[in-house]
Amino acid sequence: MQAVLMQRGKLWVETIEDPTPGPGEVLVKSRACGICGSDLHAALHTEDFVATSRESGGAFKLTTFEPVVLGHEFCAEVVDFGPDTERKFNPGQLVCSVPMLLRAKPLAIGYDEKIPGGFAEYMVLSERMMRAVPDGTPTTAAALTEPMAVGLHAVNRARLGGREAIVVIGTGPVGLAVLTALKATHRGPIIASDLSSGRRRFAEHQGAHAALDPSVDNPFAHQDIARAEELVIFECVGVPGMLDRVFLDAPPDARIVVVGVCLQTDKIRPLIAINKELALQFVLGYSMDEFDTSLRAIADGRFDVASMVTSEVALDDVEFAFRSLADPEGDAKVVVNPWLEPLPHDG
Amino acid sequence: MQAVLMQRGKLWVETIEDPTPGPGEVLVKSRACGICGSDLHAALHTEDFVATSRESGGAFKLTTFEPVVLGHEFCAEVVDFGPDTERKFNPGQLVCSVPMLLRAKPLAIGYDEKIPGGFAEYMVLSERMMRAVPDGTPTTAAALTEPMAVGLHAVNRARLGGREAIVVIGTGPVGLAVLTALKATHRGPIIASDLSSGRRRFAEHQGAHAALDPSVDNPFAHQDIARAEELVIFECVGVPGMLDRVFLDAPPDARIVVVGVCLQTDKIRPLIAINKELALQFVLGYSMDEFDTSLRAIADGRFDVASMVTSEVALDDVEFAFRSLADPEGDAKVVVNPWLEPLPHDG
Repeated sequence: MQAVLMQRGKLWVETIEDPTPGPGEVLVKSRACGICGSDLHAALHTEDFVATSRESGGAFKLTTFEPVVLGHEFCAEVVDFGPDTERKFNPGQLVCSVPMLLRAKPLAIGYDEKIPGGFAEYMVLSERMMRAVPDGTPTTAAALTEPMAVGLHAVNRARLGGREAIVVIGTGPVGLAVLTALKATHRGPIIASDLSSGRRRFAEHQGAHAALDPSVDNPFAHQDIARAEELVIFECVGVPGMLDRVFLDAPPDARIVVVGVCLQTDKIRPLIAINKELALQFVLGYSMDEFDTSLRAIADGRFDVASMVTSEVALDDVEFAFRSLADPEGDAKVVVNPWLEPLPHDG
Repeated sequence: MQAVLMQRGKLWVETIEDPTPGPGEVLVKSRACGICGSDLHAALHTEDFVATSRESGGAFKLTTFEPVVLGHEFCAEVVDFGPDTERKFNPGQLVCSVPMLLRAKPLAIGYDEKIPGGFAEYMVLSERMMRAVPDGTPTTAAALTEPMAVGLHAVNRARLGGREAIVVIGTGPVGLAVLTALKATHRGPIIASDLSSGRRRFAEHQGAHAALDPSVDNPFAHQDIARAEELVIFECVGVPGMLDRVFLDAPPDARIVVVGVCLQTDKIRPLIAINKELALQFVLGYSMDEFDTSLRAIADGRFDVASMVTSEVALDDVEFAFRSLADPEGDAKVVVNPWLEPLPHDG
C-alpha cells in the first residue's frame, strides 16, 4: 500500500506491505485522517518528542526513531476481518476508533513503527475499539471525533456550572475543539485570544463571542470577562512561558485548565499564582465515553465541525501540508485522504 | 520603648519612640509575637524579598530597605485609646488583630518602617481589627491565631469531603498549622513528610497519623495513601524544585494545595502534571472569618497549639533565635515576649 513515512522529521511516500489483521482485528481503509499538532511536533522535534515521551511513560506518543506512519485522528472503512472477530460491522461501513490497538501490550496507532496510522491506505483496528459512524456523517467530520474528544474532556474536567465567563487562549485545533464543545453546552460569555487573524475568525465561528488579538486587546479587560464573578481560562497554546504569562494576566481566583501540552521544562513564578490564589487543572486525553459522545455530537450536529476542516490532501501532499501548518494562518484542521488524487504540481 | 530593628539582615535592640495611636487606633503592649518563616526570609534574603514583594504588589510583605520592627503574629494587651475610638475593650484586656493598620492606605504591621510590629514593647492597632482573646487563653497560644488562620485557610480552600487521604509535605510552622486544622475536622488518613526528625515528632503530635522521612520512605507508597481513592497533597515547603518533585511523586488525579511560598522563579515540567491530570490550588493568607475562627478554636482547644510553642524569648534574644531557626531541628514556633527578662548570657 501507499503510505507516508516519517523519520526524524523527514516525510516521504513509499509503498509498504499491507497490514494484516491479527486476532480480534479488522482491516480498514483510512478514509480521512486529521493532522494533529502532535504529529507536527513529532516531525519537527523528533528528538525532544521521543525523549519526553520515553521519560513520561505516556502511552500515546512517539517512542521510536524508526520510520513510522503517523495519523491517529481517523475515519475508516471496513474491508476485512481477522480471526476471532465478531464481525459486528459490514464491509464498506464507516468507523472511528480510539487510536489504540489491543495487543498483548496496547499499541499507539500512529506512533508505533509496527502499526501504521491513518496517513496510509490501510490500517488495522481492534474490533472492540471500533465505533460505527452514523449514516450521513462526512468522513472528514467523523475524523474529528478524536480531537473533539480532547476538547470535550477539557471542558468536562473544568466542571463548569454553566454561567462562568470563559477565556480560551490559543485557537489552533485544540482551542477550537474546546470552543466547539463549549458552544454546545455553555451559557456564559466566551472570549478567545489568538495572535492569528485567521484563527480568530475560526474561533468566532466555533463559538467565541469575541476573538481578540492579545497584542492589541487584553482578553481579561474585555467587559464580559472583567466583570465576571467566576472565570475559567483554557490555556490551549502549550509553549514555555505561557503559564507564567497567564499567571500575570489572570484576575484573582481564576481557574486555569491547562490543555496545551508544553513538552519543555517551563519557568513559573509561584508567588504570582499564590498572590491571586489561582487554581490549575492539567488535563490530557479523554475517556471512551467522551470519545463516543464526541462522535454522536458530530453526527447529530451539536458539535459543528464542518468548517474546521479547511483542506483535504492526498498522501503526496502530506509533506507540503506539514510545512504549511507551521504557519497556520488560513488552516484549522487539515485532513489527509489517502484515496484522493494528488494535486497537480508545477515544475 | 525597646524594639528589635531589622535592616538588610541585621537585627539589633534599640530604644525608639513609643508609637502614638491615631484616630481609631489603640495603644497596646506586645505580649507575645511569633517568629514567622517570612520574618526569617525578610532578614536572610532582604534584597530578594523586597524585590519580589514590590513586583507582586502584595500588601503583607516587606517593601522597604529602612529599619523595620518585624512581628505580625501577636497577642497584645490594651493600654490606651487614640481619638475617635469606641473603647470597646478594657485596659489590660488581651487582644489579637489581623496585622493591618487601617490608615488612608492600609499598612502591613510588622513590615512597614512607620509601623512597629510585635518585636517591640508597644504597638498601635486599629480598633476595628481587634478581637478580644477569650479568658484563660495563654498569650503564646493566642499569638498563634494568625499562623493557624493560614493553615485553616489552606484546609478550607482544599474543599475536603472529609475522607480524602492527605499528604502534608514539610512540617515547619506552616505544615504544622495545616495538620492542626486538619486534626480538628478531617477523618481521612493524614501522612506527613519532613527531613527533620524533630519536625516529624511535632507533626505526629499535631495530627499526622504517621510522619515519614522522605529520604527513607516515600509518603506516597504508605499503604493509607497508595490505596486511597482521593488524595490531597499540602505542599508546605515552598522552595524551588518542590513542585516538580511533587509532580513526579504524586499519583494520577491528585490535588495539590500550594501553601509553601516559593519566592523564586521555579522550574516545572508541565508534561508530568498533564500525564497525571494533576490539579493545583495556590493559596495565601486568610479571611477575617478564618482569623476569628482560628482564635476561637485555639481558645476552646479544638486547635491544640500549646506544644507548638517551643520557646519564649526576650527582645535581646531575638537575633539568636533568628540564627537558630535556620536549623529548626528542635523548634516549631518561637514566640518573642518583649516583657520577658533576657536570658543570662555567658561571656
